[in-house]
Amino acid sequence: MTTPEPKRIRGVLAPVLTPFRANLSIHHDLLLSHCDALLAQGLGLALFGTNSEATSVAPAERLEAIARLLAAGVPAQRMMPGAGCCSLAETVALTSDLLLQGIHSVLMLPPYFYKEADDDGLFAYYAEVIERVGSDALQLYLYNIPQYTQVALSPALVGRLLDRYPCTVAGYKDSSGDWSNTQALLARYAARGFDVFCASEVLLSDTLRAGGGGCISATANVNAAGIQRIVEGWDTDAGPAVQAAANAVRTVFQSRPMIAAMKACLAGRYGDDDWRRLRPPLRALSEPQVDSLASELAALDFH
Amino acid sequence: MTTPEPKRIRGVLAPVLTPFRANLSIHHDLLLSHCDALLAQGLGLALFGTNSEATSVAPAERLEAIARLLAAGVPAQRMMPGAGCCSLAETVALTSDLLLQGIHSVLMLPPYFYKEADDDGLFAYYAEVIERVGSDALQLYLYNIPQYTQVALSPALVGRLLDRYPCTVAGYKDSSGDWSNTQALLARYAARGFDVFCASEVLLSDTLRAGGGGCISATANVNAAGIQRIVEGWDTDAGPAVQAAANAVRTVFQSRPMIAAMKACLAGRYGDDDWRRLRPPLRALSEPQVDSLASELAALDFH
Repeated sequence: MTTPEPKRIRGVLAPVLTPFRANLSIHHDLLLSHCDALLAQGLGLALFGTNSEATSVAPAERLEAIARLLAAGVPAQRMMPGAGCCSLAETVALTSDLLLQGIHSVLMLPPYFYKEADDDGLFAYYAEVIERVGSDALQLYLYNIPQYTQVALSPALVGRLLDRYPCTVAGYKDSSGDWSNTQALLARYAARGFDVFCASEVLLSDTLRAGGGGCISATANVNAAGIQRIVEGWDTDAGPAVQAAANAVRTVFQSRPMIAAMKACLAGRYGDDDWRRLRPPLRALSEPQVDSLASELAALDFH
Repeated sequence: MTTPEPKRIRGVLAPVLTPFRANLSIHHDLLLSHCDALLAQGLGLALFGTNSEATSVAPAERLEAIARLLAAGVPAQRMMPGAGCCSLAETVALTSDLLLQGIHSVLMLPPYFYKEADDDGLFAYYAEVIERVGSDALQLYLYNIPQYTQVALSPALVGRLLDRYPCTVAGYKDSSGDWSNTQALLARYAARGFDVFCASEVLLSDTLRAGGGGCISATANVNAAGIQRIVEGWDTDAGPAVQAAANAVRTVFQSRPMIAAMKACLAGRYGDDDWRRLRPPLRALSEPQVDSLASELAALDFH
């Protein structure tokens, strides 16, 4: 009797926006409704990613929010929460606690304060995390977002980690926007079952064509259906039109403070102004910014 | 009967290097010995600053280390530990716990992941921290280190915070290396009792001449006496020579991975190789790097 290999998360994932109450605590009810809506569209949940304001949410708050979602029936195998902190101790504790909750897939930032970190230091860090967590169940996705971290995860580093931990190092989210980096990872490692995700749906057709795992995109929070259409149709005659339609929506959000703009959009869609709130140091859109967003989206017939 | 105002920390502070055991836990005995040596030289202790590998040390680890130092007799009023985390919850909790330990002065990084943070967002963040901590005893020192945070703390932001919280916002450490920024802060706020610290002793004479509070410098870990000589003699005939001698030592450390170089120096001085260890993603010097450091320091007759 063999145990079937657990199904990897592929396709489209949303770095789930985190709603806050007036006292800035997580609004768990709104979060659950939004997760349910994303799941109904077939999306995976990259909870506590950059667009979730992850680093503004303490590990204990993340764990509580996830425990509540699990208790409400959100399936653990559809989650890929962010677990990368700056310190080894915090990253190991958060990852271990997620595993105890039954969550196996985590997206892991490198330690992002010290810019002197080189490949040897980053290898030592990730290796130490994997060894200390010490679980065969762990599926670790490396998170490359040098605009925020100034610490890039090179294809060479990925190769070293994959050679050493082939059953644990499961994939990579490339938020660099540098297609040559994404392409190098796809070319070298996709055939080994390593799932490369682009971070913008603008690159999704190209990523899927090259054997990638999908995308983990901010705007999947607001345009889940439009992005899913790329997954379904990228290799059909409708592909270019479907890709272009999603790109147009992306452009509207990307040309303004993106988290605030997506939250303003959800506030309108769900009819709840609590959605508009961000934690400092980030700020909600002003009224004129909300109006400008609404008119640009209306021009695309996007609601 | 009036209560005397508690004495502010001024002069030279060291961002105390953090020694680690082979299992990467904090080596509390070595840390205590080093703190005692720095105190004996008249220095203040900026524990868990950048050069202490602060972000590689979890808040709970920092609190335990400080509790042990206090229990061993290190005075709370000579400490200015780092308390700035990325999230409001963690920063408030760490700062509150330090206050419970009797420590009033903290050095506070801005939230350092989101680069979009503007003055309004940073004002909201610091204001929220101060309001939530809610203690008249808090003396908050703003920590400007844009090379690592990419989030600069502008003189205009300082003015807003100082106007709103004049009894709490106590000073500023400027690690930008941009003398025009340090100078603007000194010119605008020093007369209000706001203590501006430079981060390199290279700028210490200039900072003291302009009415600054002193310096919080990495190399105070290794050259405490040389930097104290600047404080004592900057306005005497010996001033330029004393400043030049300290600058020469600084240059040697600054031209290599600085934390690793200072730890190698202390390993030699204290005769304990545990001092050489860093937490990943940072790394110790290689043997050839240690040899090269030693020969450059010997050429300066520095031991």
